Amino acid sequence: MSGDGGSRGGLPDLHWIAVDWGSTHLRATALGPEGVLAEAGSEDGMARLATPKAFEPALLALIGDWLPQGRQVPVLACGMVGARQGWREAPYRATPCAPLDPAALMAVPCHDPRLSLRIVPGLMQARPADVMRGEEVQIAGALAVRPGFDGVICLPGTHSKWVHVSAGEVVSFQTFLTGEMFALLSQVSVLRHGIAAEGWDAAAFAEALSEAQSRPERLAARLFSLRAEALLEGLSPVTARARLSGLLIGAELAAARPYWLGQPVLLIGAEAVAAPYAQALAAQGITAEHLPGAACSLAGLSRLWACL
Amino acid sequence: MSGDGGSRGGLPDLHWIAVDWGSTHLRATALGPEGVLAEAGSEDGMARLATPKAFEPALLALIGDWLPQGRQVPVLACGMVGARQGWREAPYRATPCAPLDPAALMAVPCHDPRLSLRIVPGLMQARPADVMRGEEVQIAGALAVRPGFDGVICLPGTHSKWVHVSAGEVVSFQTFLTGEMFALLSQVSVLRHGIAAEGWDAAAFAEALSEAQSRPERLAARLFSLRAEALLEGLSPVTARARLSGLLIGAELAAARPYWLGQPVLLIGAEAVAAPYAQALAAQGITAEHLPGAACSLAGLSRLWACL
Repeated sequence: MSGDGGSRGGLPDLHWIAVDWGSTHLRATALGPEGVLAEAGSEDGMARLATPKAFEPALLALIGDWLPQGRQVPVLACGMVGARQGWREAPYRATPCAPLDPAALMAVPCHDPRLSLRIVPGLMQARPADVMRGEEVQIAGALAVRPGFDGVICLPGTHSKWVHVSAGEVVSFQTFLTGEMFALLSQVSVLRHGIAAEGWDAAAFAEALSEAQSRPERLAARLFSLRAEALLEGLSPVTARARLSGLLIGAELAAARPYWLGQPVLLIGAEAVAAPYAQALAAQGITAEHLPGAACSLAGLSRLWACL
Repeated sequence: MSGDGGSRGGLPDLHWIAVDWGSTHLRATALGPEGVLAEAGSEDGMARLATPKAFEPALLALIGDWLPQGRQVPVLACGMVGARQGWREAPYRATPCAPLDPAALMAVPCHDPRLSLRIVPGLMQARPADVMRGEEVQIAGALAVRPGFDGVICLPGTHSKWVHVSAGEVVSFQTFLTGEMFALLSQVSVLRHGIAAEGWDAAAFAEALSEAQSRPERLAARLFSLRAEALLEGLSPVTARARLSGLLIGAELAAARPYWLGQPVLLIGAEAVAAPYAQALAAQGITAEHLPGAACSLAGLSRLWACL
């Protein structure tokens, strides 16, 4: 935990707290009349918390010092905290719909009288079946920053999303396992012996990207070559890392083609995750604007707060 | 360990011992003038043995009781035991070549005077880079059972292989990570929550297989739907298991098309692993003959033994 807490009396100007609570992270932002008062984060994500009862202590461990005595502070939380395995299930809202609806917030009773918690529900799509939790807030944040945006928002990550947005609504979306597949193949599978934990080879990435898109049916045949070339030709682990990334992102772009083809694209995410996607889209002639993920989360929750 | 060992004096009729030593298994067969005398297996595969020194004790733990005092017994071993991380590296032989070459066996000195160990080298292909260790023995075994076979041998498994065989030689081959991807996605990834450990849905398998082959570029988009349909529609974990298998084997068949198209196909492997591949090939109009993997390994090592 890294806290930037206040005194025993809490943060006197505290108006509300924004919480982004995913599978593997918990991030909180204290907000006052002038904006951000404090920020804190821990690794107490949903995956680490065994029961619903573990969530309030995890939250208080992070933000307890911010809370003044004798009054209730509103907390708006988004992400996997609202999943079935989270603190309290916040039922999905059905697309097409606006990314956020103040009336659909799920109030969750807390033991600490200083907390007034509401959880943002995720979105679902019936056909093809798909779900998101947390990204809807980032999408709303992007629309707050770029009002009237009509096109496609790509949110790369462990489970990357491609989202068609029009007239302020999420029209359709599609999730890919690309980030998780990269982690499993590079850290757990037999390929791990020849793949670096960091480093980049831009030429190898570009070549693999192009190959995966032009011949997507060959993907399954290309993965083991990373191992074989390491054994036979001393393939550099950094080159192997970039090539694996290019193959998987190329396969994602091939499958997501109905989303990005001929559309303006906004990329939301951390710079390191968004950069390869920007390069991949550029190779298809698409200049994607990049917005940082944490700022979009805060902008989305702030938009909700302004409606309450 | 499950042993079928002899007395303190060993197996009196013992001529030689066949050993199949992979990443996760160790299987030994004692052979005499009339054939099999005893069989034993353990999970002391290469992956579990930390150093080269650990291999001889692991072998003796399994077959020590078979060895008569006062004479040396030949042991022929194939598989990852000959890898760089194995007991002793047996350098790859370059394809095109016959699957086995008695002159290329790697003799490994043992501490126990009753052991005379030789390791079978694997095969390599320069372009595209690829390697095998152990499958070359099964291929030789299949050729012993089906002399003159000209066509394609498919060896499904953790790392499945497609092998073009002609005039008694391995002409070319291609490895796929299908089995390992299935294990990672069904047991480690977010999809694990909705995938059964066993059970089968033949219709779901056939449908996914067909979809993956006809639209291989959509594979990356189909995986997360297993999770979303579990959440939204209560997709059965057994159906999800069969569908994941169909998607991955379909992708493999799409990539391996240059191998199997218009060719006679032999499938080598355990029944449970080979059956879905047989069904997948049947859907393409190909009737593949199935040979059991363990029998092919023994037939291949026996062919080597007959040449010594």
